[in-house]
Amino acid sequence: MSNKKPLNVGIVGYGFMGRTHANAFRKVGNFFDLPFEPVMKAACGRDQAKLKEYADKWGWETTETDWRKLIERKDIDIIDICTPNDSHAEIAIAAAKAGKMVMCEKPLSMDGPQGEEMVRVIEETKVPNMVWYNYRRAPAVTLAKQLIDEGKLGRIFHYRAKFLQDWTINADLPQGGAGLWRLDAAAAGSGVTGDLLAHCIDTALWLNGRINDVTAMTETFVKERTHTGTGKVEKVGIDDACAFLARFDNGSLSTFESTRYARGHKALYTFEINGENASIAWDLHDLHRLQYFDYRDAGNVRGWRSIHVTDPDQPYMGNWWVPGLQIGYEHTFVHQVADFLSGIGSGKPAAPTFRDALETQYVCDAVLSSAQDGQWKKVKHAI
Amino acid sequence: MSNKKPLNVGIVGYGFMGRTHANAFRKVGNFFDLPFEPVMKAACGRDQAKLKEYADKWGWETTETDWRKLIERKDIDIIDICTPNDSHAEIAIAAAKAGKMVMCEKPLSMDGPQGEEMVRVIEETKVPNMVWYNYRRAPAVTLAKQLIDEGKLGRIFHYRAKFLQDWTINADLPQGGAGLWRLDAAAAGSGVTGDLLAHCIDTALWLNGRINDVTAMTETFVKERTHTGTGKVEKVGIDDACAFLARFDNGSLSTFESTRYARGHKALYTFEINGENASIAWDLHDLHRLQYFDYRDAGNVRGWRSIHVTDPDQPYMGNWWVPGLQIGYEHTFVHQVADFLSGIGSGKPAAPTFRDALETQYVCDAVLSSAQDGQWKKVKHAI
Amino acid sequence: MSNKKPLNVGIVGYGFMGRTHANAFRKVGNFFDLPFEPVMKAACGRDQAKLKEYADKWGWETTETDWRKLIERKDIDIIDICTPNDSHAEIAIAAAKAGKMVMCEKPLSMDGPQGEEMVRVIEETKVPNMVWYNYRRAPAVTLAKQLIDEGKLGRIFHYRAKFLQDWTINADLPQGGAGLWRLDAAAAGSGVTGDLLAHCIDTALWLNGRINDVTAMTETFVKERTHTGTGKVEKVGIDDACAFLARFDNGSLSTFESTRYARGHKALYTFEINGENASIAWDLHDLHRLQYFDYRDAGNVRGWRSIHVTDPDQPYMGNWWVPGLQIGYEHTFVHQVADFLSGIGSGKPAAPTFRDALETQYVCDAVLSSAQDGQWKKVKHAI
Amino acid sequence: MSNKKPLNVGIVGYGFMGRTHANAFRKVGNFFDLPFEPVMKAACGRDQAKLKEYADKWGWETTETDWRKLIERKDIDIIDICTPNDSHAEIAIAAAKAGKMVMCEKPLSMDGPQGEEMVRVIEETKVPNMVWYNYRRAPAVTLAKQLIDEGKLGRIFHYRAKFLQDWTINADLPQGGAGLWRLDAAAAGSGVTGDLLAHCIDTALWLNGRINDVTAMTETFVKERTHTGTGKVEKVGIDDACAFLARFDNGSLSTFESTRYARGHKALYTFEINGENASIAWDLHDLHRLQYFDYRDAGNVRGWRSIHVTDPDQPYMGNWWVPGLQIGYEHTFVHQVADFLSGIGSGKPAAPTFRDALETQYVCDAVLSSAQDGQWKKVKHAI
Repeated sequence: MSNKKPLNVGIVGYGFMGRTHANAFRKVGNFFDLPFEPVMKAACGRDQAKLKEYADKWGWETTETDWRKLIERKDIDIIDICTPNDSHAEIAIAAAKAGKMVMCEKPLSMDGPQGEEMVRVIEETKVPNMVWYNYRRAPAVTLAKQLIDEGKLGRIFHYRAKFLQDWTINADLPQGGAGLWRLDAAAAGSGVTGDLLAHCIDTALWLNGRINDVTAMTETFVKERTHTGTGKVEKVGIDDACAFLARFDNGSLSTFESTRYARGHKALYTFEINGENASIAWDLHDLHRLQYFDYRDAGNVRGWRSIHVTDPDQPYMGNWWVPGLQIGYEHTFVHQVADFLSGIGSGKPAAPTFRDALETQYVCDAVLSSAQDGQWKKVKHAI
Repeated sequence: MSNKKPLNVGIVGYGFMGRTHANAFRKVGNFFDLPFEPVMKAACGRDQAKLKEYADKWGWETTETDWRKLIERKDIDIIDICTPNDSHAEIAIAAAKAGKMVMCEKPLSMDGPQGEEMVRVIEETKVPNMVWYNYRRAPAVTLAKQLIDEGKLGRIFHYRAKFLQDWTINADLPQGGAGLWRLDAAAAGSGVTGDLLAHCIDTALWLNGRINDVTAMTETFVKERTHTGTGKVEKVGIDDACAFLARFDNGSLSTFESTRYARGHKALYTFEINGENASIAWDLHDLHRLQYFDYRDAGNVRGWRSIHVTDPDQPYMGNWWVPGLQIGYEHTFVHQVADFLSGIGSGKPAAPTFRDALETQYVCDAVLSSAQDGQWKKVKHAI
Repeated sequence: MSNKKPLNVGIVGYGFMGRTHANAFRKVGNFFDLPFEPVMKAACGRDQAKLKEYADKWGWETTETDWRKLIERKDIDIIDICTPNDSHAEIAIAAAKAGKMVMCEKPLSMDGPQGEEMVRVIEETKVPNMVWYNYRRAPAVTLAKQLIDEGKLGRIFHYRAKFLQDWTINADLPQGGAGLWRLDAAAAGSGVTGDLLAHCIDTALWLNGRINDVTAMTETFVKERTHTGTGKVEKVGIDDACAFLARFDNGSLSTFESTRYARGHKALYTFEINGENASIAWDLHDLHRLQYFDYRDAGNVRGWRSIHVTDPDQPYMGNWWVPGLQIGYEHTFVHQVADFLSGIGSGKPAAPTFRDALETQYVCDAVLSSAQDGQWKKVKHAI
Repeated sequence: MSNKKPLNVGIVGYGFMGRTHANAFRKVGNFFDLPFEPVMKAACGRDQAKLKEYADKWGWETTETDWRKLIERKDIDIIDICTPNDSHAEIAIAAAKAGKMVMCEKPLSMDGPQGEEMVRVIEETKVPNMVWYNYRRAPAVTLAKQLIDEGKLGRIFHYRAKFLQDWTINADLPQGGAGLWRLDAAAAGSGVTGDLLAHCIDTALWLNGRINDVTAMTETFVKERTHTGTGKVEKVGIDDACAFLARFDNGSLSTFESTRYARGHKALYTFEINGENASIAWDLHDLHRLQYFDYRDAGNVRGWRSIHVTDPDQPYMGNWWVPGLQIGYEHTFVHQVADFLSGIGSGKPAAPTFRDALETQYVCDAVLSSAQDGQWKKVKHAI
């Protein structure tokens, strides 16, 4: 890896996402030939003991307990943000102003206005930037994008997406704390909308274009939970479930749904798109497969094809193993790093950029607003 | 079959539903021990030649070309209505007033107010009555109902249903005429809402109780089609697709969707219900299976069970073959006849009655009304 | 049905197969336009009470308790044999000699030599004849045959078939008696070999041609069971499980397996055939689907297609309902009757004839013989 | 990772398996807490340029072009053998004699006698040793083992396994050379038997105990291929396909099959085991799932469970991500390293050891011998 240009990464946050990102930085060079080599230079977090353990485990060369210090360091090229949602904006803006490239966990921001400010700064500073909507880079999802771009589907009639989980049915689960900040509205901004539907929306915008109008409903099934910060039983501020109807700019109709109360589904992100000539479906629980139906097949042998996306002529798969041998969840992050590094200075930055991610934020805002008053909402546009 | 009380059936209509009903009347006694024996006494339709062919093929003893004549006949006990939706009310009301039992194809009526009048008369005359929402009686669906009634699911969080087809994507298809009256708003009342969503709603009301509020959108993708009546290209009045969000009386959230533009799906009616302790899913394309997830299974071997509903201890299946040997679509109608005949005079009439079916009509009305103005609508209740 | 030539059927046996055949005779005219109309003239069995109940239920016009009497009757055109295997030969030979057409349940005979005698007589008398290997006529299986005949698969490398059940694991089940004569070697001839593998072999011969060589093993897991005839615990004479390797005349290699001890499988008959260019798989538990893989599909979207065989351009399906609405097990018998009736006098009799079925018998003989001494066996040929 | 004892690894071979092993050594410490830390000290191969590229890509600290030199090095603790099969014995024996721990790619040896010699030396020298039968450590497969060990299945009746590929159907593929030594009998020893069936056998021995007797057939479909060594068209010496019947020591019956001519299957390793009370099935194409049927479930809701093996209480999964997020092929190797390192000095060495792998070799020998003369063969035992 010697003749590649090294880029020093400083990561902020060592939780679940800290692990997925570290793994991606560590592996990417083993599987992809890239112009740059990410160097795991510094990890940053507030709890010194946990930080140390994390840095040792993953091989981060140094540590910082104050992200501002990290940003000040001259030897850092990229700031990677893995903190809860409420600190994305502050860190990203400071990093961009310091001239660092910025990789930010999704969702971009707490809401659209905050995201606008982030986009304004990041575009002024012109630093390379990206948001970790990793599912775009499951090979089967990228293949879906290719098929759509080739025009295989024809006019699109329908798009539907769901992200179903069941891990918060237990009413004894607290809000806040390690791994549970997603239940705390102050840290997360929203519940399933920002956490799960944001993924569905990002993919949908990529595959099917702009969403113009939405009408939504949300629900909080467990109304009160103990807050780990205060130690008291407090009202739950997040949405446990959210469903919305949407109309895309291309005329297609759509349903979206997410919940953490769908017993039997651990992380069932699914989408389906129905075109005049062909349809596509995907499912995170079997992420290495793509379902494809082509009406142009001969009538007597027409059927949904279950494509095992592990061949070298399928996206990213030439870099991994041999046909039939599947990859998994973590690889989507490796692909994201590979594409980000390839995009630097190429004139074709890896998507989604901060601006792309702002569009998702606008859809979330419209959804949450509609859920408040029951009215259809126009979606503001960033792209 | 000699010591069973014969009941003479007069059927109105010889189209697709005329076949499914005739098959049901003809088979039911071979597989079910019942207090009554349906006798295929008379078939009625306007086209004498087609009527003759149909009656000969199925063994209807006599024919009539005027349904009023049929209703006047003393030897007819049951009037079975298989005509397009716009004539259900007139025939059913006349039949009830003549003291006939009435079996009516779904949907009950063109809309709620018309259905109310049908219910008023049928209940005044006290004749046994039933609407052919046949999918309740797919053994897997009946098993779902049993599991719910046993309390296996616990508190219900979500219900979702879809009915996806793709047969009207071709813009050259006319509206009206044999087999295509479903595209003609004057005959059908609505498009997918009354045709397909009505099935989804009927099952949902049965399995999950009342729907209180809905918000909906509809679309007509092909705006003009040749009308077979006028021979001219005319505006299409039906909804090609409809999706709605709903809140049930039991607090669960729901999405419903139907379309005839989902490439790759022939008649994909699916539903899923998520409870606190267990979930259930079903799919018309493999109607002999039920998917079941039970959280009380030991954690390491917990998974969705694919239940092949062909055992004698599963609903209706003791009357058919042996384990592993599946039945199909037509059997749902046989079950419906069996249950109707068993219900007569038992004090427990077979559901759905006209009143039950009116509830579905009210949901459809609310859905279509919401699709007009984009507002959430309260659903009127019949039950 | 008036201008069709009636053919009077006399059935021998009123057990499980008596029901499937009666249903087929009764339904076929409702769905198929045929030159002949089967008339359910007489049912024959030894137990007068059960016979009466069966005849009444299904509409057989008359009854006989001695099959010889039935054969003597002038008003009978077709003898349909549904008795246990040990009486097929005697009845079929007598019927043929009396000039009756003969339809015989599978397997044809107790063994090859007995089958040879049956073929000799039936061919001398030139009566139309057929053996009820019904699975050839599952629409998906017939579609498989069409694809093979069109040359879609190219050179064949592999054929594999299994028929897995689990209903005899219970050691308390007796041998012999109603529904259990299949456990009694005297009545059944063999266990799974004649009962289940015979189906697999019949299909294989039809789809893939002659089998030349086999090596086999069998096992009887439960060694003793109460015999319902003697009331005593007796040694079990049948094979509970049988597996064999085979080489086809076309050079392909094959594995066959059957058992009644495969927990979790009710009647899982599956086959798969791998060709140079395409492969096909089928499964009785979802008999309305065919799995098809075509290597000529574009590489990036290549996958197994799950074909829902319910379209009018797929075998038999134009006679039933509409796309997406599945048929089941019993329909394979309806198709068999339809094809038998169409074949009469056409010069193209419906297969499998007695001669075709004798070929299956020869394979079974070779398999059972190999299981005795562990040697590879050449298969004798009838076709 | 500082307070772990480092163990220096020297790897021989940089092909496909060189990559899977390197990845495993590199990742294991990120996900598992272990007493030892593998250090990627030296990579060895004959082609200096390719070796350099490989070592750079994966971070091997040094290189050697002669494996004898590698073995002589004092700073190497573990020799990991990833070369073609014909050099396993020589390297492994030399390494053991030099006191190195030995990890050896499967199959252990060219045949049983060679394997015996390897076992003799390795056991004399008492060095920790292991063979890379990685599929034991797919979490779903390990879960299967746990369920069997808990006695969930009861008496076992059947075991069946297949490993189906389609990559050598093309007759233009040469034998020998990079990635194609598997087609060259001199390098590989056998074809699918040693390459693919060896996996099936290893798993079977682990899950179901000793195999006592086998009868087999093999076939070479493409008889001649260009040899990359000589440049000439030469007779192909390997088996393209192999199927065998087997009897296990526990009384269960079994079928095994492997081929590289099953169009549509890339690497479809499947196994199924049927017990008196429960059955289990697994499939490499969806390796993160286990199929499980439990007869003790209530009859009306009994069905095959599709277990998504991604929960922390399922084998290895507590070390990876969160429920619903699947891992893939490469992780089986990481688990193998983790278990090997955990086993060192624990008194419970990780399986399969050389001796365990010799048992698989004996089965392969019996299979190939039976395929020669068509006779049933007794299997020699190492365990």
